[in-house]
Amino acid sequence: MKEVIAVVRMNMMNKTKSALNDAGIDAFFAHEAQGRGKGFVNTAVLEGAESGYEEAAAVLGEKGKLYPKRMVTAVVPDRLVSDVVEAITRVNQTGKPGDGKIFVMPMGDAVRVRTGEVGEKAVV
Amino acid sequence: MKEVIAVVRMNMMNKTKSALNDAGIDAFFAHEAQGRGKGFVNTAVLEGAESGYEEAAAVLGEKGKLYPKRMVTAVVPDRLVSDVVEAITRVNQTGKPGDGKIFVMPMGDAVRVRTGEVGEKAVV
Amino acid sequence: MKEVIAVVRMNMMNKTKSALNDAGIDAFFAHEAQGRGKGFVNTAVLEGAESGYEEAAAVLGEKGKLYPKRMVTAVVPDRLVSDVVEAITRVNQTGKPGDGKIFVMPMGDAVRVRTGEVGEKAVV
Repeated sequence: MKEVIAVVRMNMMNKTKSALNDAGIDAFFAHEAQGRGKGFVNTAVLEGAESGYEEAAAVLGEKGKLYPKRMVTAVVPDRLVSDVVEAITRVNQTGKPGDGKIFVMPMGDAVRVRTGEVGEKAVV
Repeated sequence: MKEVIAVVRMNMMNKTKSALNDAGIDAFFAHEAQGRGKGFVNTAVLEGAESGYEEAAAVLGEKGKLYPKRMVTAVVPDRLVSDVVEAITRVNQTGKPGDGKIFVMPMGDAVRVRTGEVGEKAVV
Repeated sequence: MKEVIAVVRMNMMNKTKSALNDAGIDAFFAHEAQGRGKGFVNTAVLEGAESGYEEAAAVLGEKGKLYPKRMVTAVVPDRLVSDVVEAITRVNQTGKPGDGKIFVMPMGDAVRVRTGEVGEKAVV
């Protein structure tokens, strides 16, 4: 099992949920978060601002600003991790700064409280 | 050390806090989160809805809906992990869908900022 | 790569951001969180309350109370982890209860969604 954490644009939440479902993952959690990535101060930002992208315009005006993001966490059996990462990437990739990040973290164990099931049985 | 993350019903926060204290854990963090688990679309859901469980009723009306949850994170010495998981399970287990999940994650290191202490000394 | 999670006072967010930048980390995420640490019920708390520290005064009045905190998460290349931990500690260390904790967690992999880059290239 792995913990897969996707940090995506606020308005990509529904597409990301659908992508997880399509990849076989029905259970997940979502947080509000704020974040910023590297690489904003470059030509892509200028182009983005000129194209009307709020995120790009904002970063030109204020260094180190944090943007509201959605953080989606799913616990994924090893055999599905690459499918899940690919599915999240596919629906979130616009090619513009701010598309987000995906992190894959090791998991020790999981417990479904209702039944006491542990391991993969607790998450799929 | 392990990071123990419990995702529980909103109204189980105080019981979960007490369970952690009883298991020897005094330090933890709590988040608001939204989540959904698998297995809602089954007879347990129908039974739950008929019994007046809001979570069950809601899921019958809207697929993929997310429920508000509390996420409690504690960093736990290895020797206490099984006690902590058992304590959280005991107070949160109603047998109805929505009881939540517990995740046990590997930890690298911890630092108590005030003193600079590292390792287990930083968390207990 | 490691995931470095710092739980700090609400009003230390900007200093913590600057410290991360100075340590070479430009990308991170921030959450609101609530937390409590161990060790409040001791002479430091009494001294803190007498010195007008709200956190200390509050804890004397209500056991197990949770305090609003900021949780800052950065994904850090292995070679920068000790610098990052040191920088966060330096700006957040007041010596009073409530200075916070830093957790260092193992990371599996990271993906920059915009480009599909993986590993360290995705985070620096």
